[in-house]
Formats: sequence, C-alpha cells, structure tokens
Amino acid sequence: MQSPSPGRRLDAVSGPFTPRTPRIVAARRLQRRRDRESTGRFLAEGPQAVREALARTGTVVELFGTPAALDRYPELAAAAARADVPVSEVTDEALAALTETVAPQGLVAVCRHLDVPLAQALAGGPRLVAVLAGIRDPGNAGTVLRTADAAGAGAVVLAGEAVDPYNGKCVRASAGSLFHVDVVRAADPLAAVAELRAAGLTVFATTGYGDSDLDDLADAGRLAAPTAWLFGSEAHGLPDELTAAADARVRVPLHGRAESLNLAAAAAVCLYASARALRRPPVAQPGPGESSTS
Amino acid sequence: MQSPSPGRRLDAVSGPFTPRTPRIVAARRLQRRRDRESTGRFLAEGPQAVREALARTGTVVELFGTPAALDRYPELAAAAARADVPVSEVTDEALAALTETVAPQGLVAVCRHLDVPLAQALAGGPRLVAVLAGIRDPGNAGTVLRTADAAGAGAVVLAGEAVDPYNGKCVRASAGSLFHVDVVRAADPLAAVAELRAAGLTVFATTGYGDSDLDDLADAGRLAAPTAWLFGSEAHGLPDELTAAADARVRVPLHGRAESLNLAAAAAVCLYASARALRRPPVAQPGPGESSTS
Repeated sequence: MQSPSPGRRLDAVSGPFTPRTPRIVAARRLQRRRDRESTGRFLAEGPQAVREALARTGTVVELFGTPAALDRYPELAAAAARADVPVSEVTDEALAALTETVAPQGLVAVCRHLDVPLAQALAGGPRLVAVLAGIRDPGNAGTVLRTADAAGAGAVVLAGEAVDPYNGKCVRASAGSLFHVDVVRAADPLAAVAELRAAGLTVFATTGYGDSDLDDLADAGRLAAPTAWLFGSEAHGLPDELTAAADARVRVPLHGRAESLNLAAAAAVCLYASARALRRPPVAQPGPGESSTS
Repeated sequence: MQSPSPGRRLDAVSGPFTPRTPRIVAARRLQRRRDRESTGRFLAEGPQAVREALARTGTVVELFGTPAALDRYPELAAAAARADVPVSEVTDEALAALTETVAPQGLVAVCRHLDVPLAQALAGGPRLVAVLAGIRDPGNAGTVLRTADAAGAGAVVLAGEAVDPYNGKCVRASAGSLFHVDVVRAADPLAAVAELRAAGLTVFATTGYGDSDLDDLADAGRLAAPTAWLFGSEAHGLPDELTAAADARVRVPLHGRAESLNLAAAAAVCLYASARALRRPPVAQPGPGESSTS
C-alpha cells in the first residue's frame, strides 16, 4: 500500500472518507445556519479560501481534500500540518457533499467563527469601517466584505437582522476577505453607531435622499478623517433611526438617469472615496473666478 | 359583460390570454437567445423596466399585464395606448410563463432591440464610455450597465464574445438603464478600441497588473478628458492585445489584503473616478515640501 504524502492522514483501513463517514456527515451539517451557530464553525471551500483561512492562526479546525487536490496544492497540506490541523483525504462524492459550487476545486476547511466584539475591532484603531445594516443577501454581504478589504477597511460590522457571514455564499463572495478584516456581528445597530462615534469615527449614512453629496464631502476634506459608512439593503434602505443617528446623510451622485446604484456599487464608490481621501488629503479647491494656479 | 379600461384590449370571446394563446407562446420564445436574435425582440418585465421602455419611443411592441397589475399601474397602460402599443390582459399563468422571477409584478413588455452601431453612439459625443470585453455573466453586465448610467456614461459597448444584453438577467440587473444609455454590440474589440480613440476618447484598460494607479491618474488630471474604460471578465481579465492597444493600463489600488475587486466594484470605482474628474477638474497637487496653500 502506498503511504500518503507528508502531513496527510489516510485511514489505512477504510481509505478516503466517504459521504457516510461520521466526520463528513458532521461537517456537512455546517451548511445549515443552525448548526453553524451551535458549533461556532463553518465551511470554507476552494484553495483561495483555504489558504487565507490557514494564514489566520487558530482558524482552521480540519482540512478535507480529494487526493488530486491535495497533490495539486501541497503547500496547503503542508501549512495545515505545520499548524497541527488534521488533513484527511476524501472521495469526490464526499467533497461534493460538503460543497455548494459546481467546481469546488477539491478542498474544504472546517473553520472556527472569526467575529470579534465591536470594542475589540475598534481597539485596533481602524480608520475605515463598513457597517451593513439589515443586509440579508449573502452574496451582497460577501462582495462588500471583499470591497471593504480592498479599500483598506479594518472592520466590517453586520448589524441588526443581518445575513450570517458564515453562509457559504457569503464566504465565497468574500473571496478570502472574510479572513482579512475584523468581522463584527452587532445585534443592535444604534448601539453600534454610538460605539463607533464614541471611538472617534465620523459616521456617514448612505441614502439616495441624503443632503450631502459624496463629491462635496470629498472636496471639503470631510472624508480625510476616520470614517464608518452605513449601508442599508437595496430594497429597504437604512432605517430612519440609523440615518438620523449618523453625522451626515450622504448620497452618491447620480449623473445619468439611473434611479439608484446597487449596494455593491454604492459601497465601492463610498469606500474608495474614503480610501483616497485618507491617503491623499484634498487641496483646497479654488472658488469660481479664482485662478487654479498659484 | 364589463368593458375593459381605456387603452386595454380584451378579447371578448376568450378573455385574458393564457399560456396557450399564440401570442404568449411566441413571446415566451424570446427567453431563448436564438429567438431574440432572429426576431430582434426581447422581454422586459416589471413596472420599472416597462416604464423605462415606454419612455423610449418605438421600443415597446406589445404590453402584457394581469388585470391586477394593469389596475395598479394605469399610467403605464395609458402611456402604451398613447403610443399605439397593444395592451393585452393575461392570466397569472400566462404572466408566469413569460417571466423568470418569482415576483414579476404582473407586467411584461415585448421590446425591439435597442443597440446602435458604435459610430452612432460616438456621434453623440459621449465623454464617458464603458467597454465590457468578453463578459459572459448577464448579471454582471446588467449591473455595470446600471452603474455606467449612474456615472453619466453615454454608451456601453459589449465587445467580443460577450453576453447578450437582452438576456432576462441582464435586463433585470440593469434596472432600466438598458433603456437609458446607448448600447453597442461590437464583434471586434480591437476595432472598437481604434474607433474610440479615433473619436478622441482616451482608452484606459483596467488590469490588476496595470502600471498606472487610478489615484495617480486622477491627481495628474488625466481623468478629466473624455474616456473609455475597458473591463474584462473577473476570471480571465482583458486579452493582451486589448490592454496593449489602450492608452494606459490602470490598476485600482488595493489597500488591504484582497487580491482583487469583482467586476462590478472595479467598474464602479473607475467610472465614478471619471465622473468626478470630468465635473471637478483637480487642482494641481503641491509637490513634497511645497505649501498646500497659495
């Protein structure tokens, strides 16, 4: 019998795990929110997510892979072994049972929940925070997580009746960013806004009816300070009490005839406006009639 | 027998159209690309899309609605009647057969294809154009259409082996913007780039490996001129010959640890950077050591 590669366990008696192997059956239950909540664990699939999860110490509990995938990504099996994370070979059928995509690329990690209390995230002194209030769509939440990470946000707060960030669609849409930023789950959005303001962040609520234009804020230098952006769902927007609690209500300018932007696009525009302003404070704009050269 | 409301036709003999009525059967075929191509028609569902389609003269060929929806949106039936567009009552089952969403809101319009040749779109002198090269996902294409419209783009070019803009998912994701901007289908992306440049537009190719940083371009005032942005698919990016043909290769800065942005987010950031620069030309930035006040 061929011995398995270093760092890879293979039950000598029964071979790769099948869909009926108790550990596969248990891991598969993590596709349900109830079981994720009760165990504090979730699944991350594919080499990119597994790599990012392994890079975050203490996150991965167990790694499953088809023999082909473990051969293709030997550095991931090795990283797991160095972290004392069990690596188990599974059949294609067992892998299919654990994954939700058509082409899961052979790897699934069982991970521990990552979210931290807001106070802990704020202790890190983030200069940019995204708050998703009442966002139910996991794909949207994951996309904003990814965009927030790209824009340099230190934390993403899922506030109120929000999506489970460990939902498979959210994990996939985040493209690894779930493992990069501080994820906070805040049951009470108003309390979260108060805490953000108490930490010195300016809180901007995005709304199509905002009285502040994003470009005006940028020109006035108001984006150059630590900022938390509040985003609501596309269908319902932000609740009134949240927009009222913010320091300003901001609209992304609509130059054409579209009635609105979708959540991911609006978040990208706002977060990147902040990213730019935080790094390149604006020069005072000349007023009308003034020369633009000094 | 009750007479139908003004502007609404109802076959006195057989009542509302059913899934077997020949006109419903014919309209339903437009869910297939082949039939859309051969007839030059497509379906737009829901009151928002129907409203935008009716606002564009000559676009709507026929309007179907359930009696409840036609009662709920009398202004749409009236607008159709003013435009000599036939309005027909349909059963809930016929409506369901024509639509792809769970809650189609009772209205479906049969529309004529809208795309125009690139030369015609350029004759309008657009200062901002989005080019989607080889984008296959209709939801992505529709989202970028919507974002481009919001950012004030005059035209969106679908180049190469691209998605059918009349695909139901694209129409829905565009949220009406398909009817607002000039949509161009260009089989040859390189020829399209040449034509854009000949029209005086600066062509920027977006790529994670670009040698120009978006913020640097903005600071240098290079976004304040008429611009066409090239976007490739998230999986494959832009083909090399297209990035080579552009005036510059631009990367959206990644401040955090995300490896990339998704297409919709990258397009939102680039198009809104242009929208801002086209309206608010940047003031020359002081160099290091210079005073920022004149």
